[in-house]
Amino acid sequence: MVITFLRYNYGMIKTAIVGSTGYSGQELVRLLALRNDVEIKFLSSQSYVGKKYSDIYPFFKGLVSNVCVEQDVLKFAKECDVVFLALPHGIASKEITREVLATGCKIIDLGADFRLKSRAIYEKWYGVEHHGEELLKNAVYGLCELNRDEIKGAQLIANPGCYATCSIMSAAPLLDAGIVRADNIIIDAKSGVSGAGRTLTADSLYCECNENIKAYKLASHRHTPEIEQALGVDALMFTPHLIPVNRGILATSYYELTHKVNVDEAKRIYKEFYKDCYFVRVIEGDESAEIKNVKGTNFFDVNVFMDERTNKLIVTAAIDNLVKGAAGQAIQNMNLMFGLDEKTGLEATGVYL
Amino acid sequence: MVITFLRYNYGMIKTAIVGSTGYSGQELVRLLALRNDVEIKFLSSQSYVGKKYSDIYPFFKGLVSNVCVEQDVLKFAKECDVVFLALPHGIASKEITREVLATGCKIIDLGADFRLKSRAIYEKWYGVEHHGEELLKNAVYGLCELNRDEIKGAQLIANPGCYATCSIMSAAPLLDAGIVRADNIIIDAKSGVSGAGRTLTADSLYCECNENIKAYKLASHRHTPEIEQALGVDALMFTPHLIPVNRGILATSYYELTHKVNVDEAKRIYKEFYKDCYFVRVIEGDESAEIKNVKGTNFFDVNVFMDERTNKLIVTAAIDNLVKGAAGQAIQNMNLMFGLDEKTGLEATGVYL
Amino acid sequence: MVITFLRYNYGMIKTAIVGSTGYSGQELVRLLALRNDVEIKFLSSQSYVGKKYSDIYPFFKGLVSNVCVEQDVLKFAKECDVVFLALPHGIASKEITREVLATGCKIIDLGADFRLKSRAIYEKWYGVEHHGEELLKNAVYGLCELNRDEIKGAQLIANPGCYATCSIMSAAPLLDAGIVRADNIIIDAKSGVSGAGRTLTADSLYCECNENIKAYKLASHRHTPEIEQALGVDALMFTPHLIPVNRGILATSYYELTHKVNVDEAKRIYKEFYKDCYFVRVIEGDESAEIKNVKGTNFFDVNVFMDERTNKLIVTAAIDNLVKGAAGQAIQNMNLMFGLDEKTGLEATGVYL
Amino acid sequence: MVITFLRYNYGMIKTAIVGSTGYSGQELVRLLALRNDVEIKFLSSQSYVGKKYSDIYPFFKGLVSNVCVEQDVLKFAKECDVVFLALPHGIASKEITREVLATGCKIIDLGADFRLKSRAIYEKWYGVEHHGEELLKNAVYGLCELNRDEIKGAQLIANPGCYATCSIMSAAPLLDAGIVRADNIIIDAKSGVSGAGRTLTADSLYCECNENIKAYKLASHRHTPEIEQALGVDALMFTPHLIPVNRGILATSYYELTHKVNVDEAKRIYKEFYKDCYFVRVIEGDESAEIKNVKGTNFFDVNVFMDERTNKLIVTAAIDNLVKGAAGQAIQNMNLMFGLDEKTGLEATGVYL
Repeated sequence: MVITFLRYNYGMIKTAIVGSTGYSGQELVRLLALRNDVEIKFLSSQSYVGKKYSDIYPFFKGLVSNVCVEQDVLKFAKECDVVFLALPHGIASKEITREVLATGCKIIDLGADFRLKSRAIYEKWYGVEHHGEELLKNAVYGLCELNRDEIKGAQLIANPGCYATCSIMSAAPLLDAGIVRADNIIIDAKSGVSGAGRTLTADSLYCECNENIKAYKLASHRHTPEIEQALGVDALMFTPHLIPVNRGILATSYYELTHKVNVDEAKRIYKEFYKDCYFVRVIEGDESAEIKNVKGTNFFDVNVFMDERTNKLIVTAAIDNLVKGAAGQAIQNMNLMFGLDEKTGLEATGVYL
Repeated sequence: MVITFLRYNYGMIKTAIVGSTGYSGQELVRLLALRNDVEIKFLSSQSYVGKKYSDIYPFFKGLVSNVCVEQDVLKFAKECDVVFLALPHGIASKEITREVLATGCKIIDLGADFRLKSRAIYEKWYGVEHHGEELLKNAVYGLCELNRDEIKGAQLIANPGCYATCSIMSAAPLLDAGIVRADNIIIDAKSGVSGAGRTLTADSLYCECNENIKAYKLASHRHTPEIEQALGVDALMFTPHLIPVNRGILATSYYELTHKVNVDEAKRIYKEFYKDCYFVRVIEGDESAEIKNVKGTNFFDVNVFMDERTNKLIVTAAIDNLVKGAAGQAIQNMNLMFGLDEKTGLEATGVYL
Repeated sequence: MVITFLRYNYGMIKTAIVGSTGYSGQELVRLLALRNDVEIKFLSSQSYVGKKYSDIYPFFKGLVSNVCVEQDVLKFAKECDVVFLALPHGIASKEITREVLATGCKIIDLGADFRLKSRAIYEKWYGVEHHGEELLKNAVYGLCELNRDEIKGAQLIANPGCYATCSIMSAAPLLDAGIVRADNIIIDAKSGVSGAGRTLTADSLYCECNENIKAYKLASHRHTPEIEQALGVDALMFTPHLIPVNRGILATSYYELTHKVNVDEAKRIYKEFYKDCYFVRVIEGDESAEIKNVKGTNFFDVNVFMDERTNKLIVTAAIDNLVKGAAGQAIQNMNLMFGLDEKTGLEATGVYL
Repeated sequence: MVITFLRYNYGMIKTAIVGSTGYSGQELVRLLALRNDVEIKFLSSQSYVGKKYSDIYPFFKGLVSNVCVEQDVLKFAKECDVVFLALPHGIASKEITREVLATGCKIIDLGADFRLKSRAIYEKWYGVEHHGEELLKNAVYGLCELNRDEIKGAQLIANPGCYATCSIMSAAPLLDAGIVRADNIIIDAKSGVSGAGRTLTADSLYCECNENIKAYKLASHRHTPEIEQALGVDALMFTPHLIPVNRGILATSYYELTHKVNVDEAKRIYKEFYKDCYFVRVIEGDESAEIKNVKGTNFFDVNVFMDERTNKLIVTAAIDNLVKGAAGQAIQNMNLMFGLDEKTGLEATGVYL
């Protein structure tokens, strides 16, 4: 096993991270900080301008020497090779202007603004006006395992949502194989608290989350249309839950079979579909996917189970919401856009316990 | 708000708890210890005979003075009014003999041996021989909200499984109302670690459970036929998950509508179905059930949601697996069998955080 | 074991809780809600006036029917027998006026304003002006095990701080016995997150507390002078830590011996000192106190250890910060003030896991 | 910031890990797996011979292809450049024979057998016979920051205990500076559950550790003489606690000043003492060390506080018990022994949350 950091020769990739002090932002910093082919040129922040990044997150002391600067996307685009945006929805679509794109800088938006192709659907689910409709057609949906080729040539990437990544990757092989009904899909997903970001709300307080689990945004979560769009289905059921862990998503999804298959055939469908995908691991035995096996990593672990009594397939799949569900996939996209091996800098990133 | 402890006049109920040092056993002790109408006469144990109960669980120091005795169900039955059994499956069906029942003592079995009416189904799912087939017809399934009248006259109670309690109570009103398909029910359940008991297995180690979630026993969990039997359906999908909390079950269940209803009508169905049930709380707003709201209590919290896009109902329901899912319901059964208010001793038993 | 709820004949005690929606407030509600000798007449709140208490905390649905009212301490005092205040420091000393006390109503202040006898020391450590200096002499420090007789006749109780309760009760027997130096005491205390209350700060977010421990307010925590005053020592070292649990304090304290004692003699000192104290449990063996054994209860668990190599005593002690460290002790004070058995309503309040 | 992986030219270092399936063993695997200058030649195990390592720990699927082999230290020594032992105490001293050392292979023992220079003290604290007394003089105590030069030339390294590492590094600068009494040192340490290893004991069960904290082995923990030996003090007080986190140690230590210093001078003592130590971070402000800032990393974070009222210094220090407290320091030792930069492969190893 050999790391791949130094195998190419692009020169130093200059980057900026906008919204760098949120949880996705700090994860980008973590994953980029020690690459010797990437320079973090700007870390911007709303609340911490002028403050050393390692004073905000002492975890980074000795690793990152940046001082937070004011948000200036146009400037960053002019001076960098790639800009990451980790902002609340509705803001990136204002910041990513024609001027910004005219610089030629690559843009990877970790927010929701460029994920949905339909402005109407966006405005319905997000409840805000979209300011960059004319750019929607430029944006490539950055789910690497599904859109690799398109991503390589893209300038503007809409990095997928965390729940969406796990859900889409769970269902895509079955729909592609045409063995399940498209109109009876149920996804029951469970996410760690970092998915809610670092915003101060009572719902994110330790004593409210600890020793608890709840569903939320039932039949109304905004990743639903994103999943539907990527899978090409009209309507599916998506239910998110909050669980007391820092990181990780487990999606348990349910499918009604239209064709008789056994569990080995079903596994083969996944292996075949993801055959060139380093970050996909199809579990061999009859163990569920577990978030502890993907913690801190860019892996997507998946297993498929058959329930003959009800003629249904069950798929369990796990990702780290901050890595494959956000910063890791963003970097995987960056790697693809810059002609690098997609796993560059994404191999030795996790901890087991 | 007034407690009801002292409102009847039965005299002291003499009890024994068999298997008292497991987690369900200690919860029975917790809930019975301070009642002034109940005497804990025997606490039996396999591993701790001769040891003070409060040395095994220092939590009970000053509350319980019993010393653990050897397991002798016949003796307990002769000297007590009610015997609780909290034993691994396959053992109670040997212990509860005709001689034991001939004493007239009431028996509440927290294990699985008398829950399923069919010996064949029991042996298929549990993989062991059943030793008390002739007693299966005597046993009453102790899900209080569904079988209250039958329980009142029973001698032998099969106390429901924790997952089964939460699942059955979630689905029963909808099936009773005839508004959902019986052949497309999916129950996605999440349980705290105490559900696995105090047995030493790597899967129950702190570092393996903490910061993790996984599904397990997919399409094969033993509570499945118990749920099906109680609901009168042929086959449903039940998927359990392990979450990093000590206590609590959240069941998220999915139903395909056969009749058009709105969410208010659906809520009314639950309120009507459980109209005399103190321990059922139908949530008014659009919040999910949460285990932190039932922790330590005998409540069953439930809410119902409509997804018009997929024509499905979603039900979220929460119980404490050790209380309503085990010891609390056992005591609720005891209360009913002894002619007491079913909530006696079960009101002030929880903590919020 | 018999509960003592109904053993006296005072009639219904009418109560108000000011600041009822914080964590200490809700714990008062939990402990009072099911007493049949107490009426919760007013629950006041700043943020939730007009809202049903059980909508704020759905845990209480079916148990508490109060609607939150505006804070009006004088009115509450006129219409109640006892008013509990659970407010940030600096506020109670304004609210508890001569007019309020003139009503004859008993007042139990869970805040810090009346704990320190010296206004100067209060203002130095709390950094705010004290508005009720003339009432300081009226206030009785409500550490029940130390001041029981004085409490019985008091009108105004300064309910001790959570850390202070655990620390004072740890050290008092040794100082009373005169076997340790008073000028070399070190208390290393660890508290659950509920100690910080329900205020929104980044430090209380789930992802910041989980999988972490830190010390804070080193050599500067405000409970230090409170501990010193109660113990009658000039200066001791007190270091608080934040641990990822909801509830509980463990204090590990270190003492330099001036007289040779063995561990049995040391335990005897604790047993003798607390000989009439139901809520004190001196651990018999060589196990540490643990917060899981006191969770939800009013117990103070303590054990003492000898280190002959360094001639020091180590004491480990545990309480539930919300019960014995706040609401439980407040109710114990109330019981004493109303001539009740001090353990009334405080026996069956915990959960083991 | 540039990683240093590829900066030297030793060729591939062949390694074996004995006891590879415990938590320290898997951490060695994690940290070595992706180095391109290290080959993991043997992973041995008692329970899993013949099983793929990535089946035991699915975390490593795609990263590690080894199959577990039988333990054969002599064979490993003949075929490798370095052998790591992660075994219970009393075993390594039998396995590391003269024959093993005669191979010239470097040995890094993560266990306790070669840490104490005195066989008598070892046997007193560990309660077992020592089988390799004649090798004790060969062993170098591998606390890199204190013994760097000696380590470079060593063949046999006694890798320090986790608590010992954190405690020694906390106290050493103060004792070296001669400003505190050597006979009044108190170390109050808190460790995550992985410190207890993967052994099945009730004390390590999720429900027993979660929502709990306790002290243990008071005045009797085996790291005490190790700390005393390294610091050259006769006797100090060391108290370990178990906290509900997977990883990390926080040590809070207390010192009596013999010379007047202010807090800046005290910090300067630490900075000077550790001036060439990449992995030591002296915190600038008045924040405590926190384990979340060192999670997964080889850092030692430390801060010092003054309590003028009691004339004492308080030091808070944090490490990851599995990294700097075990596997990370073992690799740091390996790096030094092989002439590499000590931080090789140890820079990008952590996660913040």
